Amino acid sequence: MSNKYHSRIYITLRSSVLDPAGVAVQSGLKQLGYQEVEEVRIGKYVEMTFNATDEAKAKEKVDFICDRLLANPVIENYSFELTNISN
Amino acid sequence: MSNKYHSRIYITLRSSVLDPAGVAVQSGLKQLGYQEVEEVRIGKYVEMTFNATDEAKAKEKVDFICDRLLANPVIENYSFELTNISN
Repeated sequence: MSNKYHSRIYITLRSSVLDPAGVAVQSGLKQLGYQEVEEVRIGKYVEMTFNATDEAKAKEKVDFICDRLLANPVIENYSFELTNISN
Repeated sequence: MSNKYHSRIYITLRSSVLDPAGVAVQSGLKQLGYQEVEEVRIGKYVEMTFNATDEAKAKEKVDFICDRLLANPVIENYSFELTNISN
């Protein structure tokens, strides 16, 4: 039996890696009057719908896909949530 | 009193808007052997740390910042989570 899963994947730069886009947004916010913003970090958010036999296989798949295609493990971390949407 | 908040902001393309980057990732996955992936949508993920007097004000701020700077309300939706990290 195949189940359908929906995953929400969050990809962020490692904290040791500079984030120029985040710094740019923060300085934009300063100019809009938001001095109270201390830090902005920008990452990627991916929603993926796919079939897998069970939750363990589904997790394995998302891990592999993140490592291999979506994230750059040298400079990025990722985490994800998985929901079974078969019904 | 000022509280410190951490927000996790998810910005996604509206479902009626084509997502060429998502389609490209999906076709890349097909070539890697992942035929079972049905849909990929790519969005932005923003983490922001800032000060606000209370939760209502904090929400208001994030809403304004998303509308004004981070998201394009014509083609994008956003949602966010807020955590008080004062302690």
